[in-house]
Amino acid sequence: MIVVKIGGGAGLSLEACCDDVARLRAAGEQVVVVHGGSDAATRLGESLGYAPRFITAPSGVQSRYTDARTLEIFTMALAGLNADVVARLQARGVDAVGLSGADGRVLEGRRKETVVAVEDGRRIVIRDDRSGTVERVNASLLRALLAAGYIPVVSPPALSPDGPINVDADRAAALIAVALGADALALLTNVPGLLRDRHDPTSLVSRVDGDGMDASLGMAAGRMRVKVLAARAALDGGVERVVIGDGRQDHPITRALAGDGTTLAVTSRQLAAVGV
Amino acid sequence: MIVVKIGGGAGLSLEACCDDVARLRAAGEQVVVVHGGSDAATRLGESLGYAPRFITAPSGVQSRYTDARTLEIFTMALAGLNADVVARLQARGVDAVGLSGADGRVLEGRRKETVVAVEDGRRIVIRDDRSGTVERVNASLLRALLAAGYIPVVSPPALSPDGPINVDADRAAALIAVALGADALALLTNVPGLLRDRHDPTSLVSRVDGDGMDASLGMAAGRMRVKVLAARAALDGGVERVVIGDGRQDHPITRALAGDGTTLAVTSRQLAAVGV
Repeated sequence: MIVVKIGGGAGLSLEACCDDVARLRAAGEQVVVVHGGSDAATRLGESLGYAPRFITAPSGVQSRYTDARTLEIFTMALAGLNADVVARLQARGVDAVGLSGADGRVLEGRRKETVVAVEDGRRIVIRDDRSGTVERVNASLLRALLAAGYIPVVSPPALSPDGPINVDADRAAALIAVALGADALALLTNVPGLLRDRHDPTSLVSRVDGDGMDASLGMAAGRMRVKVLAARAALDGGVERVVIGDGRQDHPITRALAGDGTTLAVTSRQLAAVGV
Repeated sequence: MIVVKIGGGAGLSLEACCDDVARLRAAGEQVVVVHGGSDAATRLGESLGYAPRFITAPSGVQSRYTDARTLEIFTMALAGLNADVVARLQARGVDAVGLSGADGRVLEGRRKETVVAVEDGRRIVIRDDRSGTVERVNASLLRALLAAGYIPVVSPPALSPDGPINVDADRAAALIAVALGADALALLTNVPGLLRDRHDPTSLVSRVDGDGMDASLGMAAGRMRVKVLAARAALDGGVERVVIGDGRQDHPITRALAGDGTTLAVTSRQLAAVGV
């Protein structure tokens, strides 16, 4: 079983990703697709005259301020993208079923009750933000669909006790891979993988093992940091292998699984658990 | 088993409909929810500066001209509404799963290759319209979900060999009721039911049997005609009872099933089949 997370960034080829899912399915592989869609949400918000507002945490990390209207736009944009992926897979003979986190409570999380942000040098506290963190995957719906021969295509939002919330799709994919006991997790993005120098595409880190994880977190900035953290969560949860690969090329999943990209394997925590 | 179609018209209470689905579930009833969303699609199109264009067939029937961009808007609007219904049901403890017609190919149909319209007194032929008719329901995904304890919430678009198409949700609900062998189909709308005089809400037709169907079709105009045709398709397919009921009031499903609205039962075709 392979969990594939398709990034929503510019340049990523949905066609190539869907071709590859069809190829893997034809070879008898079980596949679960997960996707985000920040760019689609930003574009829809701009078209609606409601451009997203990004907030900066004291740590410097940026996130989308998600008020009620932004969540509505985010939900529509991701659902539209989800329908697009499902239709492309169906056109290739893959019997896909699209799910958001609320469907069968697949992705459960908790809303951040307060978000601290820095604006014009001042710290402000935001209390109406509808974003949060995936804490739990209910795998029973995914298992029922897979057992019946369907390919689940999962995307945020997740469900919290306060209603739907905007969550990170990389972490969602990692927790899905853990919950399903997947052999591998492929995080496809619009760069070649983790780079030593983010401005130099030839500085690819091809493999990260054990204690290398902390160093790799040090190299990763912005969205890549979120991916490395998701990879670590997957590895800590028992997934053997995570690959951060390039989704802009042909055969992106097959190539990622063959090691084209950054392969992250056994973490120091896993090594400690087996007494190494 | 009851199939409930929630109309997308103004005034319809999603809260009351979801309360009632939860009540029926708690009483052990199997329920499948179907919804449309023309109004939501129109509002989203207008907000995006891409207001829908309605075309008039030579018969006088109006329909939404669905070019590629309109289909995209229609898909997002309905998927957003679908997510809203699922979240409301989940908040009431109902484990709902949202589906569009492409998911598991639940709704299969055929695109109208040419649409003849009348514009400024002239007949024009439209060849790029992405709308069509539901011809087949693949009930296997619905059955798998119901067997696993989930409540499916289904909405257009449907899937055609030419990709997704805009289809009528009343007919989709009728064919789902037939495919699942439902005991009843409730079509909830924003009027009391079929009216003898559409401008007089007290002129409700409370029951239509056998040969009354043709007369009721004569009375029904616009959207109501589509509902009566859907009701006939459900009855011809073996559903015992269809109720066109008011979705603006409390307990709309329970009331419709208790006969509040227009109950359509056995058609002349069914009577003929049993030799009456």
